[in-house]
Amino acid sequence: MRNCIVAQSGGPTAVINSSVIGVFYENLKVKYYDNVYSGLNGIEGILKGDIINLSELEYDKIDTLKYTPASALGSCRYKIDDYKENDEDYNNLFKILNSLEIQTFFYVGGNDSMDTVSKLSTYAQKCGIDINFIGIPKTIDNDLCLTDHTPGYGSAAKFIATTALETYLDSSVYTNNGIFILETMGRDTGWLAASAALAIIDDRMIADFIYLPEVAFDIDNFLSDVKERFIANNQVYIVVSEGIKDKNGNFISETKIANNHDNFGHNQLGGVGNVLKELIINAGITNRVKTLELGVMQRCAMHCASLTDLEEAHTVGRSAVSFSISGATGKMVGIKRVNETPYLYDTELVDVKQVANKIKYVPTDWINTEGNHVNEKAINYIRPLIQGIPNLDTKNGLPKYVMVEKDLVS
Amino acid sequence: MRNCIVAQSGGPTAVINSSVIGVFYENLKVKYYDNVYSGLNGIEGILKGDIINLSELEYDKIDTLKYTPASALGSCRYKIDDYKENDEDYNNLFKILNSLEIQTFFYVGGNDSMDTVSKLSTYAQKCGIDINFIGIPKTIDNDLCLTDHTPGYGSAAKFIATTALETYLDSSVYTNNGIFILETMGRDTGWLAASAALAIIDDRMIADFIYLPEVAFDIDNFLSDVKERFIANNQVYIVVSEGIKDKNGNFISETKIANNHDNFGHNQLGGVGNVLKELIINAGITNRVKTLELGVMQRCAMHCASLTDLEEAHTVGRSAVSFSISGATGKMVGIKRVNETPYLYDTELVDVKQVANKIKYVPTDWINTEGNHVNEKAINYIRPLIQGIPNLDTKNGLPKYVMVEKDLVS
Repeated sequence: MRNCIVAQSGGPTAVINSSVIGVFYENLKVKYYDNVYSGLNGIEGILKGDIINLSELEYDKIDTLKYTPASALGSCRYKIDDYKENDEDYNNLFKILNSLEIQTFFYVGGNDSMDTVSKLSTYAQKCGIDINFIGIPKTIDNDLCLTDHTPGYGSAAKFIATTALETYLDSSVYTNNGIFILETMGRDTGWLAASAALAIIDDRMIADFIYLPEVAFDIDNFLSDVKERFIANNQVYIVVSEGIKDKNGNFISETKIANNHDNFGHNQLGGVGNVLKELIINAGITNRVKTLELGVMQRCAMHCASLTDLEEAHTVGRSAVSFSISGATGKMVGIKRVNETPYLYDTELVDVKQVANKIKYVPTDWINTEGNHVNEKAINYIRPLIQGIPNLDTKNGLPKYVMVEKDLVS
Repeated sequence: MRNCIVAQSGGPTAVINSSVIGVFYENLKVKYYDNVYSGLNGIEGILKGDIINLSELEYDKIDTLKYTPASALGSCRYKIDDYKENDEDYNNLFKILNSLEIQTFFYVGGNDSMDTVSKLSTYAQKCGIDINFIGIPKTIDNDLCLTDHTPGYGSAAKFIATTALETYLDSSVYTNNGIFILETMGRDTGWLAASAALAIIDDRMIADFIYLPEVAFDIDNFLSDVKERFIANNQVYIVVSEGIKDKNGNFISETKIANNHDNFGHNQLGGVGNVLKELIINAGITNRVKTLELGVMQRCAMHCASLTDLEEAHTVGRSAVSFSISGATGKMVGIKRVNETPYLYDTELVDVKQVANKIKYVPTDWINTEGNHVNEKAINYIRPLIQGIPNLDTKNGLPKYVMVEKDLVS
């Protein structure tokens, strides 16, 4: 018996299941592993023995899973200790993996999950345990090193750009339109906010300003930019990443602002969009300020996914199986952009240690000199990743999604 | 010369432009009016002389406009006085309409716009002015009387149900999932919130509770329902209409709640979703509560529109022109459901006075006896309205939308 196991970790994306199904389908083709097991809720579930056998699911469910958003196998945010400090998890985990005759462990996730892959592969090699560990990249944040981009990002970028187009039109209908603030995720990096630069109508970019965590946010500059644009156009469209910080590294979302314009006098609750709104109102620019926090929608909107992203997520899963056959371990499947126009990519193995716990930022020369927008380099990089529309099955007029029954292996 | 004019009013929808293009296309076919003029920003713009000639736009722009969300001609929230109190607007308006040789004025909007149609048609008839006024229904709120439903509602309902599916999956991935609250629009009625009942996965409705303004909201019942469900399932999915009220008619969104769980001790800002969140946390049910306020997205998400809705919006515009030829005035084009399965509809003229300033509520017998969900009657009514996916043109991977140049007629 030679089996493998796949599990998902960290925040879900629209296309994360496509990677798991990629592992399953590639193995169907090459018939290398006898069973493809799956751990529920990542390593946390595996440690509890919550494991199912994907090979026992019905095929039409498997096929619909490819088009179902969010981690169908469940997820976790579980960080294992360094084995030198505490090897309890290691002992338990390898006992379980051995009992299931696991040859390869595939872990779909972001920086933290790659840290887990790194630790487990190091431990196995050190102890002479013949189990391999391969990371499959996934995060809407697009902040993993050694890969051109991460599966999940293209679909989130597409949803953000589409919503920017639509809310810009919605916020342009009155004679007195005011200011609209779109808040995206992105605690450390501005990849998601930058994707709003793709929103173009009649050859004009609709976002007046895009603020990224990569640039120290200056309140005075912000207010003077917004005031000038508002006086000129009677309308301003602002995109902001939740993670923008001041020059001392403090999150702007945590700024305490006295509320001049209501009777409560309390501090502001809510995200950075609301902080910017208060700043604008308090500066007397206008009271007509609307904010929209996209929240979890940007990571699960399969109905607006990028076909390119969905297929790349699938491909990294398939490649992981191919690469595993030669016995690779301590690696992550990276995406390499091999041609700009037409856009072409390939997959390659990269060292997971160089990915774990590191962050890839939006390059400085992709941001304008004023630090309040991105330039053509960013657009040319992002645009190929949002192309195409997946052909979703529908049921009663809505996308057909499925959930996985939790029939645990004994 | 025999001309007509069309204008949009009130909150935009994803499909409102489809109605305007319906007016234009039907006239192309029947060649009844020499010019189709359009007032920018509704009656407010017409009074300022902000008028364009749709017949002078390029055809491919006209065609793309049909698939562009939000009022491309601009909108307003302008209520004209009763002419007995102040007839200044009337004098100005009829001077402008006469100078443009307008035979028929088409007004696309909701309750307030129908009030305008009613007042203007009454005034014209009283003064013997030969200009006709016809209302074309539009509102995501679906609260107009004498029409089975309103164009705009089906697309909003589809976006809400789709987002409910996706955010339910997203909020189900951890072992410790908590409570998710989806807040929809609907100040007076629960039509939008009710549409989340269409969100079904593996034959199971994902919304545990749906709260509508039609039912007096009782905090104690709410907390006991949520607590019971959370203990049973470790997860609760709640949909709430922004307009829910207590038994005295006070909006729950305005409830002042002491914040037990932070150090500020201030009152809660934000929508009703956040109020429910505070109630749940203060009751000690769980701290893991997420809210999502859909905001303007639900009224402009053309990328997730209903083809049925888009085509019905077009049809009511076309019908308005057909009906106008016989000289109808003081009427609105209503939608009549003529068959349940398969769903078939027709248009008819209804008396705009019976629509203006009235509200159509979700029927009591479509709501369950506990007042915290809707039943099959609601689902059977809404489901036909969300069917089909419009085939949007794309540009650079995103929906192709256009804006109208404001080339005013002299």
